[in-house]
This record gives sequence, structure tokens and C-alpha cells, in this order.
Amino acid sequence: MNLRIVARQLSVVAWLIGLTMLFSISAAWPEIGGQSEFEDHGFWALLASMVVCGITGLMLRMASGESNSTLYRKEAMAVVGLSWVLATVLGGLPFYFAEVIYTSVDGREIPMGIADCLFESQSGFSTTGATVLTDIENHKWVPRSILFWRSSTHFLGGLGIIVLFVAILGQGSAGKALMRAEMPGPSKEGSQERMQHAAWNFAAIYCVLNLILTIILYLEGMTWFQAICHAFGTMATGGFSTLNASLGGFNSKTIEYTVIVFMILAGTNFTLIYLLTLGKFKKLVTDPEWRTYVGILAVATALVIIVGIFESHDFDPQDKLTAVPEFELAFRDGLFQVVSIMTTTGYCTADFDLWNNFSRGLLVVLMFIGGCAGSTGGGMKVIRIILFTKILGREVEHSYHPSVVRHIRLAGEPVTDQNIPHNILVYVGLIGAIIVTSWLALTWIELDQTWIEAGHPTHNKLIDSGTAVCATLHNIGPGLGIVGATRNYAPFSDSAKLLFTLLMMLGRLELFAVLVLVMPSFWRD
Amino acid sequence: MNLRIVARQLSVVAWLIGLTMLFSISAAWPEIGGQSEFEDHGFWALLASMVVCGITGLMLRMASGESNSTLYRKEAMAVVGLSWVLATVLGGLPFYFAEVIYTSVDGREIPMGIADCLFESQSGFSTTGATVLTDIENHKWVPRSILFWRSSTHFLGGLGIIVLFVAILGQGSAGKALMRAEMPGPSKEGSQERMQHAAWNFAAIYCVLNLILTIILYLEGMTWFQAICHAFGTMATGGFSTLNASLGGFNSKTIEYTVIVFMILAGTNFTLIYLLTLGKFKKLVTDPEWRTYVGILAVATALVIIVGIFESHDFDPQDKLTAVPEFELAFRDGLFQVVSIMTTTGYCTADFDLWNNFSRGLLVVLMFIGGCAGSTGGGMKVIRIILFTKILGREVEHSYHPSVVRHIRLAGEPVTDQNIPHNILVYVGLIGAIIVTSWLALTWIELDQTWIEAGHPTHNKLIDSGTAVCATLHNIGPGLGIVGATRNYAPFSDSAKLLFTLLMMLGRLELFAVLVLVMPSFWRD
Repeated sequence: MNLRIVARQLSVVAWLIGLTMLFSISAAWPEIGGQSEFEDHGFWALLASMVVCGITGLMLRMASGESNSTLYRKEAMAVVGLSWVLATVLGGLPFYFAEVIYTSVDGREIPMGIADCLFESQSGFSTTGATVLTDIENHKWVPRSILFWRSSTHFLGGLGIIVLFVAILGQGSAGKALMRAEMPGPSKEGSQERMQHAAWNFAAIYCVLNLILTIILYLEGMTWFQAICHAFGTMATGGFSTLNASLGGFNSKTIEYTVIVFMILAGTNFTLIYLLTLGKFKKLVTDPEWRTYVGILAVATALVIIVGIFESHDFDPQDKLTAVPEFELAFRDGLFQVVSIMTTTGYCTADFDLWNNFSRGLLVVLMFIGGCAGSTGGGMKVIRIILFTKILGREVEHSYHPSVVRHIRLAGEPVTDQNIPHNILVYVGLIGAIIVTSWLALTWIELDQTWIEAGHPTHNKLIDSGTAVCATLHNIGPGLGIVGATRNYAPFSDSAKLLFTLLMMLGRLELFAVLVLVMPSFWRD
Repeated sequence: MNLRIVARQLSVVAWLIGLTMLFSISAAWPEIGGQSEFEDHGFWALLASMVVCGITGLMLRMASGESNSTLYRKEAMAVVGLSWVLATVLGGLPFYFAEVIYTSVDGREIPMGIADCLFESQSGFSTTGATVLTDIENHKWVPRSILFWRSSTHFLGGLGIIVLFVAILGQGSAGKALMRAEMPGPSKEGSQERMQHAAWNFAAIYCVLNLILTIILYLEGMTWFQAICHAFGTMATGGFSTLNASLGGFNSKTIEYTVIVFMILAGTNFTLIYLLTLGKFKKLVTDPEWRTYVGILAVATALVIIVGIFESHDFDPQDKLTAVPEFELAFRDGLFQVVSIMTTTGYCTADFDLWNNFSRGLLVVLMFIGGCAGSTGGGMKVIRIILFTKILGREVEHSYHPSVVRHIRLAGEPVTDQNIPHNILVYVGLIGAIIVTSWLALTWIELDQTWIEAGHPTHNKLIDSGTAVCATLHNIGPGLGIVGATRNYAPFSDSAKLLFTLLMMLGRLELFAVLVLVMPSFWRD
């Protein structure tokens, strides 16, 4: 392991984070200028964090010396994994320096501790959107500039720290190695020119969509500050809002339908969006992954609406509405939550914890699916679910036709690379093992007492913990019960928050770049 | 697919089931003779069922004609899968004919319907031990001869219908093909002589252990009827009792510790027990699977005791005991439940639903592990968990050392067969897919209303359903909440009961022999 070259790359990451903080300060300026004294400490906190980023970058650059050797696969994985660790730490500084108040107990205001800051920072970068902040509309607790920084971490995380890196700096073969380790999806082959081209395309589409959405949301009645933050939250499939009631707080049909459309776009493979801008509409609608993605969204929405109206009274519990408005509401809330959860955004316009249990369970299953490969969506990705299902079917067939070798087909094309089925099985296995282990660990480190104090029945602990693990590992944000749509992660202990931080990073980097960091043989030569 | 040869084999299964019913009638004779009229209908029901078995066997034999062709893999899988379907149907007849009352609603006594009978029968054969019967001590509802038949299905199922078949009939290469499809565990190679030898050994050890345990339990105070039924329930890792309070109803330390020892034996690879009888004690204690099996039991028990005493008051909620009796009780109840759940027996001596949530969660995780390969235990088997963990570790290493090919090692020996890691990944993937799908299906077909009527909070539906799916698929019996230690499966709807029946069969036959039955290409030539 060539640590010098790793340090050299990390220095750039530190500077990049610092640069985004500068952007954050200036963008938040109109909110700060001429405002009361409690807005100021956000400004100073961001400035101080920026200085720390700059110094960290300098120190890493000095430690690396003059190193120009090649970046091999191992070093590339170390750079990606450690970049995210570094980003999490640096990104948490503004919260810490600004002494952001995240909750109050018996009237005492509690400032964010180290675990809280790391959690909030990782939640931003990993585009999870889970929060420990209990009142973000109280700007004495949470200065607006800090809120803006929080949403900016979504912007950076959705793009991918390394994608940005490669798009700007190129880096030749190093860039390719880095991209492979960070970009989501099972298949990431291609020449280094194609890699940089892909990074550029991805970044360009991402920025343009962010811009368009910001303008639309502004025109639909948000302030610029709100519009930018919610565009960041939507396009990164993040979920940080500027209101306590999340996107539901605006109470606007227009805004909700707009965000639905852009969440669906954010969960779509950006290559397809690129082709769409070239007028190749047919490429989109014939893509097997996208068709399945839209199909699952449609079926899940239909189920939530049907069960919610006919078996339960999810959308009209007091029976106040006639059929048409009830259906309209069911369609709006159902579609919004299904899209929000499956694309792993996590915005809420309805408290789905009050829905029937089938719908709640369905949302949990959607968490596992996530967006398309090459999108900003988290989860396991639709393409993996498709291939996984086909692999299992083939294996059952294989048990009585052992001699028949048949490739899996995707839209008629055989998948000849034998590594793909294997890698998908390993990926699913790892996800399962991580979920079971983390779930059990969480039920151990977090006492039953937490549920009692939060006013939730302790019997819900097992399911709540399970969904909390899924919601962080798959980068959604809200889960069920204690971490439900109207709740947050504040009640958890520091050790639980650190576990969630780890899970969010594992999910965003698709496991390997994080897992290798804890393997002793990874660090040996 | 040669259906004639399949029918020929199935005819033997039908007769075999009929024969066991005869055994059941005669064994239950002292209980029946000279007793009141309500015991009689059990006798007549068993007799009628026996006649049906005989006729079914005859019809199948007539349909098969003179068929002496070879049994290929496909036919063998069909025989195994269909044998279990046939056994489930025939085994359910006595419950149906005896019009067993399984529950009462508003004072009305409800006889078992078709779904109830299939559920109870499959629960017996698959050695799950889940029941829909709410009062088995009321012999007007459940005649003792029927209770005896219920426990006999455990005996047959633990041995394996096909193992019995092969041990008795041999059948040459056909026997080998059949055994491969029924016997649990990832590796089942060997010559046909070794297969029949293995079947004989397995059957002999199984019967002798059943006999020994029966005698011990009789000496410890049970009646012969109780002793035989509980020996069947223990050695098959089944869990059917003759008391409503399960084994806890005897309230005897001696009986509980005896059963603990025999449950551990029942979850041990029978080959090791065979070697033990030859004095090869070292073979047992150096076996990597057995060491892990015992290790997990020990660690889990320690955790349940420690967390249950120091963090919670699971064993002494009213704080009535001093330290020593509290520890003694914690050790007894903790060890019993850990062993009972992990070996997939499912006997209860304590209501673990009142324990803290970590311990409850731990028991759920133990359900997945199960017993050793070549035992009567269900679950995924310890050896698969060991190999699965090693495969995942190797794959993480592989991500940064892609060129290094390293075999997984088990007790120092490399596992060179590349099919084993692949098959284990597929198996884990299938288990995951089945659990998620069944869980979602169950939350759909079983309305939230069921929880309200059973006096359970509806918010527990998701976790209760999840554990019900695991407890049936892994052949344990009790789960959490509505299917907890002191509860049963009576409140579920018929469609849910049929889903559970399918899951129990899937688990017992390790998926493939059942899954192939629903593949259209399996039935084509």
C-alpha cells in the first residue's frame, strides 16, 4: 500500500470540501447579512471549518511528498474509502463549531456532540437525509447558513465526491480506478476516456437538473433558499428539508407533483437522461431496468391506494371525504411516498406510520430496491433485483437440468460475463449479513428504555430497529415507528448513531470500499 | 418426466403412512380401550385414514403399471416433492375425520377445516411443531390417539420419509438420487452403498435415541404416552407436546435438563453420534461444525443470561429472588430456550416474549442458524453459516486482490469444490427472497383485524409476521407476539395457514424439491 499517493489524493478532497463551504457561505450570505446575532455563528463556524479543511489538505499534501507513481486498485479503494471518512469528519465541523442545538431535554438545550455531527454529515454526503435535528425552523438552534451547508452535502454526495474529482481533474487511469470504486451499479467497465466523459456527463446533467428544479420550485412559491435546498435534497435523492414537516410543510399540490417527477428522474440512469436530451426517447422506454423501475413504482402505488382505501382508511381516517377527493388524496400521498421511499429520497408528505401494516411493509421492501444503476438513488438498484431474480430462477432450473448451461438474458441479450451473477449473489449475501448483524447489534447497544422515553411501545423496538438499519444502509432516511416519517434519529445513543453513520457510508459506497478498510491484509503489502 | 415411475414410488409412500397409522392406533390402544365414547372417534378416524392410504397406494400402483425404468434426477426430485405433498394430505386425514376441535369462538366449538388439517400435518412431518390447536388437554376436543398420531408425524418427518424408504427398500441408484434430494446439508456425495448404509445408520441412531429418551422420561415421572410423544418431539427437533404449557407444564428441572441434552444431540450430525458410539470422542470435539454449533449455543445462552439479569429483569420481574436462585433460573430458562430455538425444536419452558428485546432478537437470529448438517435440526444449518461467513470474507479480500485464488478452508482443509460456495450463495439468496416475499404476502392476506381480535397491538403485525415466516420456514414453531411461546397459529386465516404449510415444506426439503414443482419446464420433457 502506497500511503503517500493516497495522502496526495486525500489532500484534494479536503480542499474540495473547503471550497464547497466557501460556496455555502456566499450562497447563504443574503440570509446572514443584516440579520440577528444568532445567524452570525453559522458564518464563523463555516469559516473556521474551511480553514481546518485547508490546513488538513496542506498537511496531507506535505506528508505525501513528491509522489507520481501509479494508483493501483488497492490504493484507489483506499482513496475512495478514506475520502468519505475524511469528508464525514470535515463536513461535521460546521455543526460542531456552530454549537447547533439538536434537541432539548426538560427545557435544557443540548448541543450536537461529535457522534451527532458525524451522523448528520454522513447522512448528508451519503444522501440519506436522516437527521438528529428536532427543530430546524428554530434558527437560533440551527442557523440558516448551517442548514444550507447541510443541504450542500447532499449536492456533493449525490454527485459523488470522486466523480467530481475525476470530472474536474481527469487523472487518467487513476480516475478510472477511482470511479470504479465509487460509482454505483454492478457493471462499470470502459476506457479511461469514456470514464471521464461519463463523469462529465453525469455532473453536467446533475447540475442542470438541480438548476431547473430550483427555478421551478422558486416559481412555485418557495424562497430561493428553500428552492435550492429542496432541489439539492431531491436530485441527490437525499431528503434534507428546511421545514420540520419536510416537504409536506409547504402544503402545495404543485410542489409535490413537481418533486415527484424530479425524484423519478433522480432515480433514473443518468445515461438515459443524456440520451433523452438527444431526443432518443425510445432508448428510455425500452430500457429493461427503467421499465421495471417505473413498473414497480406503478404497482406499489396502486397497492397502497387500493389497500389504503378499501381495506383500511389510511387517507381518510375520520371518513370526512367523498370518494373523489379521497382517491385524489390517496393518489397524491400514495404516489409521493412510494416514489420518495423507493428512490431513497425520504421526503414526507404523509405520516405513513398511520397507514395499514401491509403498506408500511411494502415501503420497507421498496427500500431494498432503490433507484436505477447510474442514478443518484440508493438501495440495491433495480438492475441487481432483476438479475438476482433471474439468477435464482436459473438456479432452480439448474437443479433438475444440471447439464444445461444457459446465460441469463436481459432484454433479449445474454449476460455472458460469469462474474456478474456471482458478484450479485455476493452483494445480496453481504447486504443480508450486514442487516442481520447490525440489527442485533442495535438492539443490544440501544436499551429498551429509549423507546419508553420517546413514548413508543418497547414491543416495537425490533421492527423499528430493523427499519432504522434498512433506512440508513439503503440511504433512505425515515423508517418506521421511532424513526418514522414525523420522527428523527435524536433519541438514539452515541454508539447507535455511530453505527448508523457506518451503515450510511457502507450503503453509499456499495460496501466494498468501506469493508476493505477493516481488513488487516488490505494494509499489508 | 416419467410419471409412471413417480406414481410407483408414491404408492409406497402412501402405504408407509398408512402403516404408521396402524402403529399409532395400536400404540394408543391402552389409552382408548375402555375409555369414554369421545376417545373412540380418534380410533375410527385413524382406521378410516388408514383405509384411504391403502386405497390411494393401490390406485397409484395401478396407474403406474409395470414400470422398471431408471429413476433420473428429475424423477427423483418429483418423487421427493410429491411424497411430501401426499404425506401432508394423508397425514391430515385423521384430524379431519375425527372432527378435532381446534378453538372456540363465543362458546362455539370450531372443528378443524382443510387448511388447519394440512397445516397441522405438515407441521408434524416437517418437524416444525407449530400448532393451530388451542387446548390439547381437552380430550373431548382432541382424542389422545389423534395426539399420538400428531407426535408420530414428527417421528416420521425427523427420520425423513425418503430416508426410511431407502433404508428399508434400498432401491439402488434410485435410492441415492432420492436421498440427495431429501437429506439436509450442502454436501451429499457418495456411492449408492454408502447412501444406503448412511440411511441405515441414521435410522438406527435415531430410533435408539428415541427409545432411550422415552425410557428416561418415563423414569422421570411421565406416563408412557407422554414419554413417547415428548421423545418424538425432541429427537425430531419437532416440538409437539401433550400439554398446553408445552414442556414447561411438567415443571421439572430433571426433565428440562434431560430434554436439553437430547435436543443438543438431535441437532448434532448423526455421523458424529455414530462415531461417538464407536468411542471416537475426539472426532466429535474436533469437528469444526460441531464446535461452532456448541460455541454459538454457549455464547447465546451467556448473552441471554447476562442481559436478562443485569440490563433487564427477565427472570425475576417482581424482584423476589436473591442472586443465586435468580442465576439458577436464568441459566435453566435461558439455556433451554436458546437450545430449543436454535435446534429448531420449539419447546417452551419460559415465555421469552416477556424478555428484553435484545434477547428476543437474538432468538430470531438463532432460528436462521439451526442445527448441524446430517441432524434432524432445521434452519440453514451451522455448516452453511460457517462457509457463508468465510465466502463473504474471501470476496471482500478478492475485491483488492483480484488475481489471488484462495480456497476456503475448513479445519485446515481447503474446500476445492467450487460448486459449494456457489450453491451456498444461491441458497442464502433464495432464503432471503422467500422470507421477504412471504412476509409481504402474509401482511397482505392477513388483515390487521386479526391482531385486534387476538388482543395484540396492530403495530406488532410486521414483526410478528416476520417471525412467523421465519419460525415456519426454518421449522421452529413459536415466533414472537401473536405466535409467541404461549400462543399458537389458530387466529390466522386459511390462506395464511396454507402459506405457512408451504413454507414448512420448503424449509424441511431445503427449497429445491418443492420449488421445482412450480416450474413449468420441470414438467415438460
